[in-house]
Amino acid sequence: MSASIKGKVLLAYSGGLDTSCILAWLLEEGYEVLAYMADVGQEEDFVEAKQKALKIGASKVFIEDLRREFVEELIYPAVQTNAIYEGVYLLGTSLARPVIGRRQIQLAQQEGCTHVSHGCTGKGNDQVRFELAYYALEPKIQVIAPWRVPEFFNRFQGRNDLLAYAAEKGIPVVQTLAKPWSTDENLFHISYEAGILEDPNVTPPKDMWKLTVDPEEAPNTPERIHITFAEGRPVKVVNQNDGTKVTDPLDLFIYLNTLARRNGVGRIDIVENRFIGIKSRGCYETPGGTILRVAHMDLEGLVLDREVRLYRDEHVTPAFSRLLYNGLYFSPEGAFITSTIAASQKNVNGVVRLKLYKGMVIVEGRFSETEKLYDMEESSMDVHGGFSPQDSEGFIKIQSIRLKKWGGKF
Amino acid sequence: MSASIKGKVLLAYSGGLDTSCILAWLLEEGYEVLAYMADVGQEEDFVEAKQKALKIGASKVFIEDLRREFVEELIYPAVQTNAIYEGVYLLGTSLARPVIGRRQIQLAQQEGCTHVSHGCTGKGNDQVRFELAYYALEPKIQVIAPWRVPEFFNRFQGRNDLLAYAAEKGIPVVQTLAKPWSTDENLFHISYEAGILEDPNVTPPKDMWKLTVDPEEAPNTPERIHITFAEGRPVKVVNQNDGTKVTDPLDLFIYLNTLARRNGVGRIDIVENRFIGIKSRGCYETPGGTILRVAHMDLEGLVLDREVRLYRDEHVTPAFSRLLYNGLYFSPEGAFITSTIAASQKNVNGVVRLKLYKGMVIVEGRFSETEKLYDMEESSMDVHGGFSPQDSEGFIKIQSIRLKKWGGKF
Amino acid sequence: MSASIKGKVLLAYSGGLDTSCILAWLLEEGYEVLAYMADVGQEEDFVEAKQKALKIGASKVFIEDLRREFVEELIYPAVQTNAIYEGVYLLGTSLARPVIGRRQIQLAQQEGCTHVSHGCTGKGNDQVRFELAYYALEPKIQVIAPWRVPEFFNRFQGRNDLLAYAAEKGIPVVQTLAKPWSTDENLFHISYEAGILEDPNVTPPKDMWKLTVDPEEAPNTPERIHITFAEGRPVKVVNQNDGTKVTDPLDLFIYLNTLARRNGVGRIDIVENRFIGIKSRGCYETPGGTILRVAHMDLEGLVLDREVRLYRDEHVTPAFSRLLYNGLYFSPEGAFITSTIAASQKNVNGVVRLKLYKGMVIVEGRFSETEKLYDMEESSMDVHGGFSPQDSEGFIKIQSIRLKKWGGKF
Amino acid sequence: MSASIKGKVLLAYSGGLDTSCILAWLLEEGYEVLAYMADVGQEEDFVEAKQKALKIGASKVFIEDLRREFVEELIYPAVQTNAIYEGVYLLGTSLARPVIGRRQIQLAQQEGCTHVSHGCTGKGNDQVRFELAYYALEPKIQVIAPWRVPEFFNRFQGRNDLLAYAAEKGIPVVQTLAKPWSTDENLFHISYEAGILEDPNVTPPKDMWKLTVDPEEAPNTPERIHITFAEGRPVKVVNQNDGTKVTDPLDLFIYLNTLARRNGVGRIDIVENRFIGIKSRGCYETPGGTILRVAHMDLEGLVLDREVRLYRDEHVTPAFSRLLYNGLYFSPEGAFITSTIAASQKNVNGVVRLKLYKGMVIVEGRFSETEKLYDMEESSMDVHGGFSPQDSEGFIKIQSIRLKKWGGKF
Repeated sequence: MSASIKGKVLLAYSGGLDTSCILAWLLEEGYEVLAYMADVGQEEDFVEAKQKALKIGASKVFIEDLRREFVEELIYPAVQTNAIYEGVYLLGTSLARPVIGRRQIQLAQQEGCTHVSHGCTGKGNDQVRFELAYYALEPKIQVIAPWRVPEFFNRFQGRNDLLAYAAEKGIPVVQTLAKPWSTDENLFHISYEAGILEDPNVTPPKDMWKLTVDPEEAPNTPERIHITFAEGRPVKVVNQNDGTKVTDPLDLFIYLNTLARRNGVGRIDIVENRFIGIKSRGCYETPGGTILRVAHMDLEGLVLDREVRLYRDEHVTPAFSRLLYNGLYFSPEGAFITSTIAASQKNVNGVVRLKLYKGMVIVEGRFSETEKLYDMEESSMDVHGGFSPQDSEGFIKIQSIRLKKWGGKF
Repeated sequence: MSASIKGKVLLAYSGGLDTSCILAWLLEEGYEVLAYMADVGQEEDFVEAKQKALKIGASKVFIEDLRREFVEELIYPAVQTNAIYEGVYLLGTSLARPVIGRRQIQLAQQEGCTHVSHGCTGKGNDQVRFELAYYALEPKIQVIAPWRVPEFFNRFQGRNDLLAYAAEKGIPVVQTLAKPWSTDENLFHISYEAGILEDPNVTPPKDMWKLTVDPEEAPNTPERIHITFAEGRPVKVVNQNDGTKVTDPLDLFIYLNTLARRNGVGRIDIVENRFIGIKSRGCYETPGGTILRVAHMDLEGLVLDREVRLYRDEHVTPAFSRLLYNGLYFSPEGAFITSTIAASQKNVNGVVRLKLYKGMVIVEGRFSETEKLYDMEESSMDVHGGFSPQDSEGFIKIQSIRLKKWGGKF
Repeated sequence: MSASIKGKVLLAYSGGLDTSCILAWLLEEGYEVLAYMADVGQEEDFVEAKQKALKIGASKVFIEDLRREFVEELIYPAVQTNAIYEGVYLLGTSLARPVIGRRQIQLAQQEGCTHVSHGCTGKGNDQVRFELAYYALEPKIQVIAPWRVPEFFNRFQGRNDLLAYAAEKGIPVVQTLAKPWSTDENLFHISYEAGILEDPNVTPPKDMWKLTVDPEEAPNTPERIHITFAEGRPVKVVNQNDGTKVTDPLDLFIYLNTLARRNGVGRIDIVENRFIGIKSRGCYETPGGTILRVAHMDLEGLVLDREVRLYRDEHVTPAFSRLLYNGLYFSPEGAFITSTIAASQKNVNGVVRLKLYKGMVIVEGRFSETEKLYDMEESSMDVHGGFSPQDSEGFIKIQSIRLKKWGGKF
Repeated sequence: MSASIKGKVLLAYSGGLDTSCILAWLLEEGYEVLAYMADVGQEEDFVEAKQKALKIGASKVFIEDLRREFVEELIYPAVQTNAIYEGVYLLGTSLARPVIGRRQIQLAQQEGCTHVSHGCTGKGNDQVRFELAYYALEPKIQVIAPWRVPEFFNRFQGRNDLLAYAAEKGIPVVQTLAKPWSTDENLFHISYEAGILEDPNVTPPKDMWKLTVDPEEAPNTPERIHITFAEGRPVKVVNQNDGTKVTDPLDLFIYLNTLARRNGVGRIDIVENRFIGIKSRGCYETPGGTILRVAHMDLEGLVLDREVRLYRDEHVTPAFSRLLYNGLYFSPEGAFITSTIAASQKNVNGVVRLKLYKGMVIVEGRFSETEKLYDMEESSMDVHGGFSPQDSEGFIKIQSIRLKKWGGKF
């Protein structure tokens, strides 16, 4: 069989035009191709996509539900560390890559594939994220990245070339008008980039935003919720308006998405720096994740020791965020830094009360029944609790020794 | 004269009950007292306060308009560095302290005062900020902090003691009901703390918020503005709805305050860690500053080099923020770190287009006519501009060398 | 009984003039006093000191051998993190404080003491280190620091006052001439400060150095040793000159001390910054610790991943070193940071070959039988192993994208 | 003419076998070749090398004395920041690259060259350093790196192929036995790597070390010197043994080299991590630089504020060191970070007294006539200068507030 000549390839398949053509092309090149679809919460007709892959010639098709491990292993640690890239981006695409890449390698090993393949372009972050994960988890794997292979990218220079090839190969193409931008969707977020968005001064059209309602069209009545955290992970959400209560980790996150989506929470529009050094404009919707970020940071104010927070903020958070963005979750430093998160969150236990209103996530209060770092009497300006005012005098005097030596040089 | 027995004191005077009693008490203790009021943009009847101080017995009263230096020397550098404390607080109180303290020392030197005094409590941050500034700028100065002096704080154990003393001394007291919280206001922000806010789970009452309209009551129609930055400082604001244009640094900031206030922008409610190690609940309104933060960070995405931003974000911003919070602006490290800000902002030139709507500050686009780090063709996913896809291949392969060595240990 | 009037004090006792007078003074003040001596490896006649304390009036005397926990819990983690203060000081005094303070609190709790006391001065680091440890481990403990109590320090203004008091109380005083400097000794190091050393330009006299031979008088023949590390801890030392082999953690450290001492290894003379902001001149001998630092850092070059090392070097090492110096080992951040050390050292397994010669610790080679990050073929300049030269081309091209945008602005 | 067909190349030429063959090969490929030799202090017969290049066919040869700018612009800033890579390596090769690369681009621009070329291998750091400098300074430049060009590296697979080619082209080859390692030498250091050194457990042979005498063979009598610094730069060296005094920046550095070389100062033997992720064994001699590092760090202890030092140590030093190592001196972040050095060194004025003995650099004292941060009375344990012991009490009490809250959880 021709497939065996060059080996078996496990292709990360989306059901779209690009990866369908890649599938056909890999077959044409003499590979046996197995298709793999990761369900990380994106809106997708997996059944139809599976049939399409089989029709094109995939010898097997895997549809893997990775939503729970995505939430538990990636999203919640990101919440625990308040992970953020360049001050604004909640890392939605980056966070899904490790679970997708890991399962792809597991399946490749299970099926005896010598190669893996993906449909990422040669200019983006995702090629780096997938391939560094592949190599870290299986150093012997061989990667086929068609959009970096001259035979492929010279042949398919635009959408029309792909459409012609699809017609030639009998690949069914959905007759929708292509959107003038690209998207990447998962349970945590959706991204929009390229096309008309490449001009960073073009305001995204109203109909681009898919996950969240426009804040201007969100309900006029706020919605109030309580989120309970245990060791920095959300363990309960209660809707104060209707009494809904959710505790399962995956269900809880999906429910927060629902709440955020209908209240217009989580849109951003930025210019960011890709790992490869190019600036890139992206728009993102991160509904539930935005609520959790506000709530978790607020609770840490109440229950986390100042110096633990400072060390985490200045060292763990930037390092963890950057390694996610750059595709280095599976790496020696990734393993090391990830291993330190739990110890920083032991005391992050309590409840945050939030109001959702037209895009805003407003903290209305917080409490903890177990953590007692906050001491009402001690912090009171009116009560002489905890320590004597003269202690402050000594504290200031000692601090000033160094300054007095320097005095007057400003 | 009895005033000359113990020396001359320059008292930071607010016109309120506390500092009026302190003024009287210092006179009683045998000091000559000069009163000093810093106008940093707070709502205040300076003329009335001056008359009150003179009536109590101040030998001189100084009212100093520090608003311009506050904006130009403190607020704008904070904007340039995206200064923030514990991820949420824009440092409004901290930012005013250096200009207030510096003028107090200048006046003390000019008037031959041996002492300075203030009305800060013995548990807060402000005593530290003022006194470290005093000692750094004038190592020989002597500080009287009555709320840390046993003779004072034992005598005045509550508001009633102060009222009785005021009555005894003939100090006029405004017959308003005291608010059940304390505030500190300046051009940049207002803070609310203490009193009923000491329970971190109590939602602030609607009528507490003074500077901004409630987002729920803000206009239903968004307001659109363009902010132009030059070397990281805002130099022009144009209101797209009505054509208003402002360029003077002080006027510009005041105008942004106006815009933010009427659109409900800039409220937060947090638990923070004071310098002295106590947790404290504070609510803050930072209207114009919140708009500038969003705009400046967005523009940096477009025009600032990735690695300059990263270094600034991970080193300069946290250090500058913390030294402001802790009252160390006038210090060797304060001078050093502040001196590095300008070099990081040389390329932060351009315009950000914003929409203000019910508390939200939404970026709608940005451009720069001079800075060209963003390259539409290069970042395009559709065009082969700037570099070859094979370069990415090499980039990834080199990155993976280290990971392959470690492979499989996860 | 008078002792019970004010409570029971557990005094950290050294047997010297100061703490003997403090013991007598505490009794005079109406406390019951229990004396506690920590054996952390210093040269000391514990039996004689015990008799002395009992003679003065201590109701109990505890001599605690803490050497093993000192080595295993403090010294070896310091080796694992390459802990260092201000680039030069190996933290010898700081490292002993946690074990001494912890046992003092344990004994105080066991004996029902309401107070602890120590003989540290009011200007140094040690008062801070001891007391922060006390308060962290037993928040209710009360501390008596006589050198900060006016009744005490005004009464005893110099050595003569103490000698007179000792005579009055019948406290035996050893008739040695006091050295014109102070020392603090333990298994890890000895410090010299104060007295004639307070002039930072005075060269320490040759006879000051106590632990190590002068490099100029060290043997002319080098001594060669092999040190084996497992997970970053030394587990075996073999002397290549005479075949001596040591493996017990405590014995191993003592043996390294012996080797270093006779080869003149480990002297430094510095001006450092105390926690309270004063500059202070100190001379230190850290014999075995200096050898371990050189060896451990060298082995990490061979076996530790670059990015794990970088993160550890830039974040863990400075934070761990500073918290030790500042007496914050027992703190939330101390617990958190310490908990991350082990994970950074999993691969630090191997052997370092050293030559000791007249103060120098010279690495002559290193190897690891288990860790394979170093790949001779790959790093070879002569062999095309591991990756293709064209990969470097892509790596450089991608790195240059950002630089070309900026090009010419230097 | 054939030379004009493909353009003009400016080749970084060393006079050795490799770059001589590259010169001939570039001519063969149809380029006009100009040869460029940078004098950065290496031992080299420049005149002979020039004649050789002309004989092979270079149309011009440039010999550029860059020693002074190397010392003033690179070495002294590295001294000011205590630059170091991975805790041990003083960055000798990295430091020379910016001056060499910059002059090469200046000459290329002056001579109208479209290309530059070098003889670096495809696995090392230097290719990256040179090329990133080229691209940053002249984004349009084209780089020919023969050791990454398949036509070249496939043709010349070993030294014998090069020798045969040299014979064919009539290139004179010096009849010395090739050393079994490679070296890179400049005024600051020499490196040894590759060949027999690739086994990290092989002790370098005694006759490898070229710049410094073996410590075992260094004089038995120590040599004493005083080094004066002004704003962190060495401005005077006085030899106390013979009265020699040097002040010119370049002469001073050369003299320190002389002193260090004869006293065996500056050898290290390490395994480091290259930028491209490979571990590599290198031996280095950095004679004068090692003395300056010890002296500068010592002086900073006396005259630099604690917090300025801390910030510099934790932020500037690692960033500056890493960007030098990785070839990013000419970069936005390189320009920014370099611009901050001077402000950190304003107070680094004073004299350090050193003893050089058999590889050791021993500090014997230091003083400053202008800087007064060190205060003998204040730091004295015996004198109550500067502040009251009770201030320390308050300082400790305030620090303990946070710890007491956490107390007992260890």
